[in-house]
Amino acid sequence: MTTASRLPAYLEERQRLVDAALDLHLPPVTTFPPTIHEAMRYSVFAGGKRIRPILTLAAAEAVGGRADDAMPSALAFELIHTYSLIHDDLPAMDDDDLRRGKPTSHKVYGEAIAILAGDALLTHAFRLLGDPGLASRLDGGRLARVLRELADGAGSIGMVGGQVVDIQAEDRHVDLATVEALHRHKTGALIRAAVRVGGIVGGADAGALDALTRFAEALGLAFQIVDDLLNVEGDPASLGKSAGSDARRKKSTYPGVAGLPAARARAHSLSVDAQAAVAPLGEAAWPLRALAEFVVARRA
Amino acid sequence: MTTASRLPAYLEERQRLVDAALDLHLPPVTTFPPTIHEAMRYSVFAGGKRIRPILTLAAAEAVGGRADDAMPSALAFELIHTYSLIHDDLPAMDDDDLRRGKPTSHKVYGEAIAILAGDALLTHAFRLLGDPGLASRLDGGRLARVLRELADGAGSIGMVGGQVVDIQAEDRHVDLATVEALHRHKTGALIRAAVRVGGIVGGADAGALDALTRFAEALGLAFQIVDDLLNVEGDPASLGKSAGSDARRKKSTYPGVAGLPAARARAHSLSVDAQAAVAPLGEAAWPLRALAEFVVARRA
Repeated sequence: MTTASRLPAYLEERQRLVDAALDLHLPPVTTFPPTIHEAMRYSVFAGGKRIRPILTLAAAEAVGGRADDAMPSALAFELIHTYSLIHDDLPAMDDDDLRRGKPTSHKVYGEAIAILAGDALLTHAFRLLGDPGLASRLDGGRLARVLRELADGAGSIGMVGGQVVDIQAEDRHVDLATVEALHRHKTGALIRAAVRVGGIVGGADAGALDALTRFAEALGLAFQIVDDLLNVEGDPASLGKSAGSDARRKKSTYPGVAGLPAARARAHSLSVDAQAAVAPLGEAAWPLRALAEFVVARRA
Repeated sequence: MTTASRLPAYLEERQRLVDAALDLHLPPVTTFPPTIHEAMRYSVFAGGKRIRPILTLAAAEAVGGRADDAMPSALAFELIHTYSLIHDDLPAMDDDDLRRGKPTSHKVYGEAIAILAGDALLTHAFRLLGDPGLASRLDGGRLARVLRELADGAGSIGMVGGQVVDIQAEDRHVDLATVEALHRHKTGALIRAAVRVGGIVGGADAGALDALTRFAEALGLAFQIVDDLLNVEGDPASLGKSAGSDARRKKSTYPGVAGLPAARARAHSLSVDAQAAVAPLGEAAWPLRALAEFVVARRA
């Protein structure tokens, strides 16, 4: 069986595992005040592919760690991703009514609750790093490193910084270097942190962490270029949003600046780089390699 | 010299100390992308009284710890407080143009950047708990406890939950129990966490932490009742916002529900309770007692 053909069953099992853990680690809807906990869960369970937490778990296992130990930190990345989508969809930002085919948070709960649901998910992500089970396996220094990785990937020098660059680049002509810098911040930084945190929790040595980092940087950029390509070429039903919406908004995208053939070639070569980076980690890293292969083949 | 008369010089020195540490621990405005770092600093340095970080430092010292060791965690509370003001002031929330007499973040930077500046400050607050200096003095278990305290005080079961209750209570008649529950979440939870984190970092035993907790709960509620009283009676110049603005918005306030004399009496008795709670901690707790005395005497 090739690694690529093992991937669908692997992803399905991991999505189930992550979904069950999310349900366990989010406050129940009955917790006071119920509205906020309902809004948090509405967006978390709106049908994400759980790519980021799956990467954290796979990175931990690739360096000989256990998925169970990495689970709380893996979930933190999914909560950060979800909060960023809620805030991104707000009228003051992208003003989107639909996300994965469902009404966005502010369409269901109103803008004020949507802002607060995002804030609460961001806060809860960091609470998960305070999970007693995780802390019992990490000393203070390693827990602090994990905290810094998550915060730097998510914050003003990472994902939030990328949103700022994105806003400032709208309706302006930008070059390829700017588009790559935008992607490196907006989606790359969090994916990089998700993989590195898996490595740190899994006990990676410096060489393995370096391999994981190169893997994650290539994968993150490939992932975003393919996202841009799907936005141009994609089928709205499987995307859950209308194709061509980036172009209408004059978003700075890789295919928009470099053209479709160059974008496809770049995504392919990044996928090859990502797979090569984790080759030295051997058989335990097969899901990482399969994911890098899958990312450029996906259709939604 | 009485403790009350020592307080102004103490507060001034502590505010200077906290301001210098904030300047050191926030990314410089030149960090890419500059706009977000400028917006973060704009709101942090818009003239706060630094009550929350001062409480963290004072609680650490009250149980025999060092203020220096508690500084990164103290700053985290100021960043959380600042982010909550930015998001609170947004058009979708309280829609305020002025805060402490200055234009609010979204008036200066626009709504999108204001939302992101709040997100970035919230994220950076948790990054401060990953400060290597702090981690070197706390084992994984204690660092995890600090993380949970901050997240619970700031998140959906704390401050963010309180904002939700506040939004849902607007334009409705609420009883005194609801107003107290609102305050306990919206402002009380973060103040309680600020004091408890100081205690944990300072090495408090269970008895001392319990004393600090009772102090913080009484102080937090007194603080908010006085805030409500100042909003009714206050001088707009020293408040930095218009007096009576809560009443115009039909906000649920303590004086609004219980009347002015009962509100004044309740604030006074809570201040007495707070001072009594930390009496067993002795001379090292004098700033906490003086703060509890000051809170009900303040005019802005």
